[in-house]
Amino acid sequence: MTNIAIIGASGYTGATLAELIAQQPGLTLCGLYVSENSADSGKPLSELYPNLLDKVSLPLKPLTTEALAALCQHADGVCLATDHLVSAQLAPQLLEAGLSVFDLSGGHRFSDPEIYSKFYGFEHPSPELLSQAQYGLSNWYGAGIAKSKLIAVPGCYPTASLLALKPIAALLNPQMMPVINAVSGVSGAGRKASLTSHFCQVSLTPYGVLGHRHLPEIETQLGTKVVFTPHLGNFKRGILATITVQLEAGTTPAQVEEAYHCYDNSKVKLLPQGHWPKVDDVAGSDCALIGWKLDSERNTLVVACAIDNLMKGAASQALECITIHFGMEAA
Amino acid sequence: MTNIAIIGASGYTGATLAELIAQQPGLTLCGLYVSENSADSGKPLSELYPNLLDKVSLPLKPLTTEALAALCQHADGVCLATDHLVSAQLAPQLLEAGLSVFDLSGGHRFSDPEIYSKFYGFEHPSPELLSQAQYGLSNWYGAGIAKSKLIAVPGCYPTASLLALKPIAALLNPQMMPVINAVSGVSGAGRKASLTSHFCQVSLTPYGVLGHRHLPEIETQLGTKVVFTPHLGNFKRGILATITVQLEAGTTPAQVEEAYHCYDNSKVKLLPQGHWPKVDDVAGSDCALIGWKLDSERNTLVVACAIDNLMKGAASQALECITIHFGMEAA
Amino acid sequence: MTNIAIIGASGYTGATLAELIAQQPGLTLCGLYVSENSADSGKPLSELYPNLLDKVSLPLKPLTTEALAALCQHADGVCLATDHLVSAQLAPQLLEAGLSVFDLSGGHRFSDPEIYSKFYGFEHPSPELLSQAQYGLSNWYGAGIAKSKLIAVPGCYPTASLLALKPIAALLNPQMMPVINAVSGVSGAGRKASLTSHFCQVSLTPYGVLGHRHLPEIETQLGTKVVFTPHLGNFKRGILATITVQLEAGTTPAQVEEAYHCYDNSKVKLLPQGHWPKVDDVAGSDCALIGWKLDSERNTLVVACAIDNLMKGAASQALECITIHFGMEAA
Amino acid sequence: MTNIAIIGASGYTGATLAELIAQQPGLTLCGLYVSENSADSGKPLSELYPNLLDKVSLPLKPLTTEALAALCQHADGVCLATDHLVSAQLAPQLLEAGLSVFDLSGGHRFSDPEIYSKFYGFEHPSPELLSQAQYGLSNWYGAGIAKSKLIAVPGCYPTASLLALKPIAALLNPQMMPVINAVSGVSGAGRKASLTSHFCQVSLTPYGVLGHRHLPEIETQLGTKVVFTPHLGNFKRGILATITVQLEAGTTPAQVEEAYHCYDNSKVKLLPQGHWPKVDDVAGSDCALIGWKLDSERNTLVVACAIDNLMKGAASQALECITIHFGMEAA
Repeated sequence: MTNIAIIGASGYTGATLAELIAQQPGLTLCGLYVSENSADSGKPLSELYPNLLDKVSLPLKPLTTEALAALCQHADGVCLATDHLVSAQLAPQLLEAGLSVFDLSGGHRFSDPEIYSKFYGFEHPSPELLSQAQYGLSNWYGAGIAKSKLIAVPGCYPTASLLALKPIAALLNPQMMPVINAVSGVSGAGRKASLTSHFCQVSLTPYGVLGHRHLPEIETQLGTKVVFTPHLGNFKRGILATITVQLEAGTTPAQVEEAYHCYDNSKVKLLPQGHWPKVDDVAGSDCALIGWKLDSERNTLVVACAIDNLMKGAASQALECITIHFGMEAA
Repeated sequence: MTNIAIIGASGYTGATLAELIAQQPGLTLCGLYVSENSADSGKPLSELYPNLLDKVSLPLKPLTTEALAALCQHADGVCLATDHLVSAQLAPQLLEAGLSVFDLSGGHRFSDPEIYSKFYGFEHPSPELLSQAQYGLSNWYGAGIAKSKLIAVPGCYPTASLLALKPIAALLNPQMMPVINAVSGVSGAGRKASLTSHFCQVSLTPYGVLGHRHLPEIETQLGTKVVFTPHLGNFKRGILATITVQLEAGTTPAQVEEAYHCYDNSKVKLLPQGHWPKVDDVAGSDCALIGWKLDSERNTLVVACAIDNLMKGAASQALECITIHFGMEAA
Repeated sequence: MTNIAIIGASGYTGATLAELIAQQPGLTLCGLYVSENSADSGKPLSELYPNLLDKVSLPLKPLTTEALAALCQHADGVCLATDHLVSAQLAPQLLEAGLSVFDLSGGHRFSDPEIYSKFYGFEHPSPELLSQAQYGLSNWYGAGIAKSKLIAVPGCYPTASLLALKPIAALLNPQMMPVINAVSGVSGAGRKASLTSHFCQVSLTPYGVLGHRHLPEIETQLGTKVVFTPHLGNFKRGILATITVQLEAGTTPAQVEEAYHCYDNSKVKLLPQGHWPKVDDVAGSDCALIGWKLDSERNTLVVACAIDNLMKGAASQALECITIHFGMEAA
Repeated sequence: MTNIAIIGASGYTGATLAELIAQQPGLTLCGLYVSENSADSGKPLSELYPNLLDKVSLPLKPLTTEALAALCQHADGVCLATDHLVSAQLAPQLLEAGLSVFDLSGGHRFSDPEIYSKFYGFEHPSPELLSQAQYGLSNWYGAGIAKSKLIAVPGCYPTASLLALKPIAALLNPQMMPVINAVSGVSGAGRKASLTSHFCQVSLTPYGVLGHRHLPEIETQLGTKVVFTPHLGNFKRGILATITVQLEAGTTPAQVEEAYHCYDNSKVKLLPQGHWPKVDDVAGSDCALIGWKLDSERNTLVVACAIDNLMKGAASQALECITIHFGMEAA
């Protein structure tokens, strides 16, 4: 059995990941940690998430120095569902101890440390690690995920955007930037009391326009500039990214469809042209659904990708990274 | 013109009331106040509530000692949309200055000061005022509201419950306590960041069971014991109170209908037997809708009353108290 | 392997059941049927439910006479997710062919055929079968479910109500009828276009007051009269039943807790006194959560039971009946 | 007093308009009509919309030949909240009788009749009227609205899109088509039972991609090609249109802000740069809110416009057309 611990287990992503790991044959969930001064310290995870009552029986333990040292002894891998900076601070010690690190935060998604000061608001504490990190877009980088000990699990918006855009990168007319409009459920904002996520304040609205920290992530991975406009939607889980691109003149629907065959036999499903995914089609699921339509006269293509932000956009993609990394079959 | 100020204007109730007063002929909204250290101090109310952009242009002012003194000079009436204890602390000075006080909190709803220590968790600072306060259930106590300078505007659940139960009080079989199950929108919890009102945490659930502070309010006004079970619902505004009672044997549907004629020509509307109000029928409205059905074999009556918790359950009932008190026609 | 077919597979209950059976070790989903003239006939189930794309690959077949005959040859059990009358019409032929029948409709829930004319609006076509049917409340009637070839899977409201009330039946003060207020998600109304389930028309409201067809089901199984008031809530899945009862004077919290020990080691979970389930705690789950609070002075007990109406209230309880009946371990 | 009748008054748009007209000084709501065979014929409008109980007392009358003739006698203006083709069929007789016609359908929004066969699926029955119709975008075409007897009230998506785009038309870089992503509440689909608007089927999703009938309306009025991708959102009322454009190199934020001064003193409100409207900020309101942000390095501008689809996107804009047309002050 491979022992996996989760640091930052009380949040939506951490708890979702705990459920997945607990159910995965071959993996043992060996510890759930929260920060030392967390009010949730000591509680069973299922007290925070009653839906886990039957599924995860571990308590949340405070991540003391001793707990961290002990963890380094008995775990094979650690998932970081922590803040970006905390992840960056924890990774060196964990790697030093020989553990595989799966960082669900943005702490290791860029090789260029300047992005941290510009978009994340901090100096990266261990920039030398950044070049060793493998970006964990699981459908694309299996070989690297198998090899690297430091996996940067992608952000939710970039996952939806890149799954839709990477297959057709070669068909894009470079004169127009892809325009990505995406709507995320409120769980993307985390399990923290704030006016923004107050039930009565939530209503469809753009935010982080022309400067969201997932913008450089998408651009880096795609190798081209894009316009990325995230929105907050009035639902709990899921992301829909609707993407408008210009294709090279003369591109046919068959060419578009062909491009997406790269996902055959995976959990990324292409719908027939003109069929569109709904957010709820993927809520709670580890699948991605992609709809598309091409206007052959204008060479305009609209592609929409729906994922669950907490699953394919975080926890289930992390699980895919874990199973690939440790050489397991997917469930 | 009658000058009305609102203290505690940044909350949902206060802002709703500001909109109503600003639109009411004969009233001038003369000041909006928040606590001295509020982060919203100085902002126009419409910055917090963009839906008011066209309707209320006043800024939120900090309630300093000087501001309070000035307010006592130029206002005719003051609405307190503050915490219970704050209301109780402010009322004496305002009354002393000759103002009429409309307290939307629970600070003056009981003549028995012991209820404050038992259900509200504080010693009432001016228990001698309690007997002067008039409970402001506007459809029932117009005369008292006209006379008293201290109006205790009812709570939202009690308003829905009492509007349904008071007309049929004489028909009740005293052997069974009325059973009130009510569901409130999240705005009832106030505009404060908390995990309880986090969008992802909200889902239909009971709370405050067998001890909510609206229980003694309902029992005091009805003069009988009840079972009251409030719930939080996944909607923003509105309350539905579904009430089950046993009637005296032989009571007919006609007698029930007759009892509710007391509301003819008012904004409390009785639906035909077997028709039921929806919460959204009254969202944003100053009306109450009452549905009912009698099982004549079992003498069981189910009555459901829907109101908007922020309107008839708070702000629009306060406005009714104001117009009654100052001898104005309703709009 | 045990072969199970589903008739009426295009509805919410049928599709949920298809997913569960397809995932259950030891069971083979051997056919999905819809009525002969259904517009969905011929489509893969996952065209209607894209969330099943990766999970159920069978198409919906029209239930022709030939299809029914063939089904009788190769299936071991049949689930009826059909209208009440259709279930009652299909059962005799299926039983005749030796199949085990799991009826998720109300078609066989009563031994008294008069209830069908009074509450369901039809004469039962095979009243002689009613006494052979076993009511499939799985936590209570395992032995009967194992033996009978005709299982009447309970309704959603009765499941929530009976799970909460049966353990404490002996503690009830018979002078007061239990008062059940329940709220169901819209999926309970089925996958049929109607103004009632139009997104813009849905808002919390009572319906079927004092005469819903689940009333006789609850009363029959509980052996006592109750007041049952169902509501439609603005959510997709789940039921919350909040139940108010009077207990015999002197009943202690410990006695109440003790009564619910009957559910130890099952998927029905009792929360600590004063903790309450949310509908979303059980959405998508096969568990039931029960919260409770006793007012020892007044001997009033409030119990709330939350289930997923499509799972424990239909499909997952049907699956429990199947695994019990065929002598399998639960998953 | 000016007498206004509404044909098609039972739908969401018609009912909203009835409420507005009934409240508007100077206007008399002189008749509410539904099609002859409508099941709602004869009912008071408030039976369908209990929120109107206190506001509109008229019944829905069947539009018989006689009723139409009578209407032509006593009304000054008629609002058509009917299907596109029905509007086109009714307009000639109403105009013939000298009435002013406010068509809220798409029946008269294009001077080119070919658009009807291509996007609306019918041959326009009176193409000669099309050139007389005035497009009723009230903030832009006051003079024409005052003069013409046939006003084509704009569609909801075009209203949101054009309010945002028309002021900056001169600043657009013509090399990139504006990309409009818009999300509408379900009320936009009308008050008709359908699987699409079933509560359980609704979840954020694109529809009508690259061919919605509001596409030619936007392009005609803007005089340029656009990409328009509508979405259905899981809310009842409101539209958010998020629009991405390239501006001419060197355009400054001050120039953008200046362009929107055309809306000063109107109900179209520009928010400060980087502030964004929520759908619920305008739900139930006759205002439009516009947020914007310019990336001066890339010359990319994102503009978002929020309106209530039933109000500014239909009924309140129709009311503005009526008050302009009949020379009244706005309320």
